[in-house]
Amino acid sequence: MEKVTVKASKTYDVIIGTGFFDDAGSMIRKTVGGQVAAIISDDTVFELYGKRLINSLENSGYRVVKHVFTKGEVSKNTETYLSIVEFLAAEKLTRSDVVIALGGGVPGDIAGFAAASYMRGVHFVQIPTSLLAMVDSSVGGKTGVNLTAGKNLLGAFYQPDLVLCDVSLLSTLPQEVFADGMAEVIKYGMIRDKTLLEVLGDCSLVALSDIISRCIEIKRDIVAEDEFEQSTRKLLNFGHTVGHAIEKLSNYEISHGAAVAIGMAVETRAAVSMGLCDESCLDELIETLQKHKLPTSLADLPDKTKYNAKNLAEVCLSDKKRDGDSITMVFPEKPGSCILKEIPVGELEDIIALEL
Amino acid sequence: MEKVTVKASKTYDVIIGTGFFDDAGSMIRKTVGGQVAAIISDDTVFELYGKRLINSLENSGYRVVKHVFTKGEVSKNTETYLSIVEFLAAEKLTRSDVVIALGGGVPGDIAGFAAASYMRGVHFVQIPTSLLAMVDSSVGGKTGVNLTAGKNLLGAFYQPDLVLCDVSLLSTLPQEVFADGMAEVIKYGMIRDKTLLEVLGDCSLVALSDIISRCIEIKRDIVAEDEFEQSTRKLLNFGHTVGHAIEKLSNYEISHGAAVAIGMAVETRAAVSMGLCDESCLDELIETLQKHKLPTSLADLPDKTKYNAKNLAEVCLSDKKRDGDSITMVFPEKPGSCILKEIPVGELEDIIALEL
Repeated sequence: MEKVTVKASKTYDVIIGTGFFDDAGSMIRKTVGGQVAAIISDDTVFELYGKRLINSLENSGYRVVKHVFTKGEVSKNTETYLSIVEFLAAEKLTRSDVVIALGGGVPGDIAGFAAASYMRGVHFVQIPTSLLAMVDSSVGGKTGVNLTAGKNLLGAFYQPDLVLCDVSLLSTLPQEVFADGMAEVIKYGMIRDKTLLEVLGDCSLVALSDIISRCIEIKRDIVAEDEFEQSTRKLLNFGHTVGHAIEKLSNYEISHGAAVAIGMAVETRAAVSMGLCDESCLDELIETLQKHKLPTSLADLPDKTKYNAKNLAEVCLSDKKRDGDSITMVFPEKPGSCILKEIPVGELEDIIALEL
Repeated sequence: MEKVTVKASKTYDVIIGTGFFDDAGSMIRKTVGGQVAAIISDDTVFELYGKRLINSLENSGYRVVKHVFTKGEVSKNTETYLSIVEFLAAEKLTRSDVVIALGGGVPGDIAGFAAASYMRGVHFVQIPTSLLAMVDSSVGGKTGVNLTAGKNLLGAFYQPDLVLCDVSLLSTLPQEVFADGMAEVIKYGMIRDKTLLEVLGDCSLVALSDIISRCIEIKRDIVAEDEFEQSTRKLLNFGHTVGHAIEKLSNYEISHGAAVAIGMAVETRAAVSMGLCDESCLDELIETLQKHKLPTSLADLPDKTKYNAKNLAEVCLSDKKRDGDSITMVFPEKPGSCILKEIPVGELEDIIALEL
């Protein structure tokens, strides 16, 4: 087992390893204590791992309650969020008790916002079960739900007390969901560590564990430097400006990983056109994405007319990344290094169109 | 004008004075900047002061948008909260823009939670228009809305960027709403500064301005010491354990000030019975409450059978103040000094019954 300690407004450990899931109860007991443990999960994940987690928690002396919702991004809305906080209140959870997110990014984000806001904050533990959640959403304290107008528009910065990444849980992950996580791993490679782009061939549990640890270390360093996303943390949004717009336009039918993969490709093509990086940087990105069966262009999307530059730019401008009259975008200089660039809102459509 | 600087996770100024309301726009411009100002208010306050605030903001170059809801604690629910955040998204507010609460505690608490959670936090300015909001809710960063199960069960600790207390706005306050605020002033007197109990006779604007400043200083010192209510800040809950339960049982028909007044009386009678303070302390509290036409006993409530110790204790135990098997209560030792005491949940009903 490896341990990565994150030092943000709260200091906490991320444990990465294989086969320690059944010890979750005692690890949580040791870290946060409390009497009641509330598991928040989706139906698919809960069926796979719910019983084992309940047993582990009960063996460690917790009264366990659970709230399970329908799997998928469609559930990441204010209705699910309110049903969770009303559930916590009905179960009389107190500030010394703990909320546990079991699942991928959706349960993590929504349970995190519930834990942040119920009684203005209760203990919170993340048990990510997808590669995407392990390398990205479970670490760093961004929580949130979607509003009608866009993705993650409601939420809080709220650090967990503990993150448990048991890599063996990934064995039940469908191939395309695994690839979703790979898009974020490739993102870390592009922004900070190009060796990540090279080691991605080996997907044994041991190799995976190392890759996940490296991604979490990169995120840890960035979050320690800029927890509230005033500057450096924006680098983590590489591929996400266009990616979020694709997700929104598709009504969340295009997965986060596929959308970010296309977003990275679009933003890198624009970077090449703008003279910010060489063609070889784009080639390496495209090759790596293709190796993991990820899409690489807006042309790979089902309805090409819907995802035009005008529509995408319009959705981008409702995003959190907008700051008055400009939007901060991330462009690669070379594999392993990206820069931030302020783009006037009026130029965004042209930049996206550079890819087409 | 006086200025009290609060040093919490954010450092900000509270300005207290008379007749500077029409300069709000330029003061806000100087402090937070931004392009859009979103006013959140209730219908009664907005009719009195909305137009002047819009003019002042527009004169300082803001595009002004507004969301006005029905006055009263009944509006402090998740429905109003969601309508506000969806409104902010529809108006395309960005992280550099500002949310302004204009009104009493309800607009302040609910707009504060909206500002804290929309895009994980945007600029926030409080313009309290009631005595209660000036001395209590607008300072210290507690924001929230009520859930079905109880008061303020959902929210965030989120400090404002600026608080503007123009005492001349209090001239339109109905007498009973003014008395509501006096209950909180008396609370400050009881927990920290007994001279506050003595000066309360003089209600000129100048005297009021001094009283408000003193209350804010006390709160500032307590919040600086314990922003997230781990210890000392709980002193501010004097009268609120029983007070919140009364409000909840009355379905928020009993006002916050009246409920806290009774709560202080109940908790002080219990303190006398438990030998924690002298009878003279209770006498001084009761006399001061009566001077301001505030109720002093559960017997003053309309439906005596509803507010019995059993019902009150049950509601208290759904409150945030519960911590597993115990609840922290505040008891006076003497006027100007209170202590915290952990009460096992099983004893709470008996303690409330001491008053009857």
